[in-house]
Amino acid sequence: MAREKTVGSLSSISRNRLEILFDGIFAISMTILVLELKVPDLSDKRSVSELGQMLLHHGTTFISYIISFVMLGSLWYKHNNYYQYLQRITKSIFSFTLVQLAAAAFFPFCAALFGRYPINRLSVVIYIGCIMVYQWSCHIQWFLAKRQSAFVPQLSPSIYYRIQKGNKIGSIICTSLFLLYLSNALYG
Amino acid sequence: MAREKTVGSLSSISRNRLEILFDGIFAISMTILVLELKVPDLSDKRSVSELGQMLLHHGTTFISYIISFVMLGSLWYKHNNYYQYLQRITKSIFSFTLVQLAAAAFFPFCAALFGRYPINRLSVVIYIGCIMVYQWSCHIQWFLAKRQSAFVPQLSPSIYYRIQKGNKIGSIICTSLFLLYLSNALYG
Amino acid sequence: MAREKTVGSLSSISRNRLEILFDGIFAISMTILVLELKVPDLSDKRSVSELGQMLLHHGTTFISYIISFVMLGSLWYKHNNYYQYLQRITKSIFSFTLVQLAAAAFFPFCAALFGRYPINRLSVVIYIGCIMVYQWSCHIQWFLAKRQSAFVPQLSPSIYYRIQKGNKIGSIICTSLFLLYLSNALYG
Amino acid sequence: MAREKTVGSLSSISRNRLEILFDGIFAISMTILVLELKVPDLSDKRSVSELGQMLLHHGTTFISYIISFVMLGSLWYKHNNYYQYLQRITKSIFSFTLVQLAAAAFFPFCAALFGRYPINRLSVVIYIGCIMVYQWSCHIQWFLAKRQSAFVPQLSPSIYYRIQKGNKIGSIICTSLFLLYLSNALYG
Repeated sequence: MAREKTVGSLSSISRNRLEILFDGIFAISMTILVLELKVPDLSDKRSVSELGQMLLHHGTTFISYIISFVMLGSLWYKHNNYYQYLQRITKSIFSFTLVQLAAAAFFPFCAALFGRYPINRLSVVIYIGCIMVYQWSCHIQWFLAKRQSAFVPQLSPSIYYRIQKGNKIGSIICTSLFLLYLSNALYG
Repeated sequence: MAREKTVGSLSSISRNRLEILFDGIFAISMTILVLELKVPDLSDKRSVSELGQMLLHHGTTFISYIISFVMLGSLWYKHNNYYQYLQRITKSIFSFTLVQLAAAAFFPFCAALFGRYPINRLSVVIYIGCIMVYQWSCHIQWFLAKRQSAFVPQLSPSIYYRIQKGNKIGSIICTSLFLLYLSNALYG
Repeated sequence: MAREKTVGSLSSISRNRLEILFDGIFAISMTILVLELKVPDLSDKRSVSELGQMLLHHGTTFISYIISFVMLGSLWYKHNNYYQYLQRITKSIFSFTLVQLAAAAFFPFCAALFGRYPINRLSVVIYIGCIMVYQWSCHIQWFLAKRQSAFVPQLSPSIYYRIQKGNKIGSIICTSLFLLYLSNALYG
Repeated sequence: MAREKTVGSLSSISRNRLEILFDGIFAISMTILVLELKVPDLSDKRSVSELGQMLLHHGTTFISYIISFVMLGSLWYKHNNYYQYLQRITKSIFSFTLVQLAAAAFFPFCAALFGRYPINRLSVVIYIGCIMVYQWSCHIQWFLAKRQSAFVPQLSPSIYYRIQKGNKIGSIICTSLFLLYLSNALYG
């Protein structure tokens, strides 16, 4: 029965497979954050203090790792919350999911940049810009889903507006921060 | 019931598991594209203009990242569209899926090569060649699926020919571009 | 029916998708352990003894690879055992799953550090500390699941206490070892 | 219903989740093979002949990539064929699956080693040794599954013996090649 539905029209894609792709990209993105953490070269292999100092010296990379992991985890959680209300994945919804995924896959680069140059305003701009692109894709997807009647019947108007509001607030906060830091980086 | 079907013959593989492998390889391929983007070394860690120039200098790598991400996303979408019509995965269909997957997994290398040497005609040849191999595998798979009656009953002739036509056009365009650039690289 | 349940409340997340994320992160973490193993540079490419010595010289990295792979495999197995009793994933259970996943994704770094500096007490502290964080997250999750009645009805008290006991023992052993090595590293 | 079964005994693990872990590790292993292929440094960025020579110079790495990809694909296909007959995953079957997965995750290192030193007999020994470990794990698993009655009822004796024979032949061939190359490397 589930099959017949997807077979009916060429324009819809399997929800299951998009979940695997989505969750897969998030899982990888969250895991390759760790590749930025490098094992330091020690002159004395036994020295606890040397290793400690080396790791502390790259402390911001570790902090960026934790922030970025939590950030990706939260975005994944949020996606989970609204994706359950999508019954069909249309071509245009898929396009914006692809933008989302590109932002998520790009995130390890932003995290590495931010971890290495936390006081450089441009790296902050790029970091926030990446999240902003993600947030806007969510926001637009939600509108598209309404216009293309892609929702499950159980979605009540109150839930619809709650999610829309959450997306709107997320987009506005990210855009404001982005513009603030951008102007700061350009003219500061 | 689903189990009994797969248990019936040794020669067929689980559609579900092939989907996980396929989507997994695409997810990873799309995510490790980012590993080619390197955090630059700055002499002044706070300098916005230095970081900006460094990133602009590697601008083609970022453009290659976006193009390659969209390309892999489109190939995934296309696969999704025709894979739903396959009921059984025979050994020969699997072989060509493996060729497809090898091309997809090879793609990050092509993207890195193209991002670094966009004006080198050989890197363009390799990039297009990789997509060409992928397209031909789709094309051949579709023929094989017909000959081995591996389709679901719901597949109507009109859909069959639409997909076949799409595959054919894709293969011809890639092959033409490949030969054009190849001759250009060899004798240009 | 399964859908209606998840659609009912915004606060629960899809068990299926969390499994994909979880298993995905474990799969990647277990696989990128291998990236720490480097192909050595040989002066004589044919020399068996030179290659053998080079690999033996990095022997601890290989041992760390095997230990870490088995460790991650065991943690995955353990998670599998208790996760089947969770019917709903609440927001707070998800938060601690995220901590677990952060520890699992961080593990390749610990393995690399331990493989390179096995006799440095700080690298041992970090390695055990990572497992300790993971164990405590399991332990807390199990308590939370009880308080939020997130269990399946089939969970009998005897199984509940068996798993709780396992979690407790794991946490205590890790914490003891962690504190032992930590004091050793600091004052040893 | 499916749930009740898995809930019944603590010692069995979810087939679904083991599939995700297994397919995930194979997908990643097959994809990170590509990380060994490096974009060469060119003195003339436009030069087709220089890039061509550079890539040809690392030709064995590309050949190793293709061989290893096909090898992993075949092992995955084979696993698919016999895994469908396992109804329960016992603790000991899981242990040997873990050995299999460790071998699969270790494969990219073997492929990199073989690609770089194809004429070094030790790298051939390690490459074949890794496949040998994998094959023996299959073989032992199959025996264990019989002894622990973990098969689906549909498994006929003829299929059982066909798969057992395949496993035996695979193990014997790998072990013979391994011993041959090993003695060759040691005393050759």
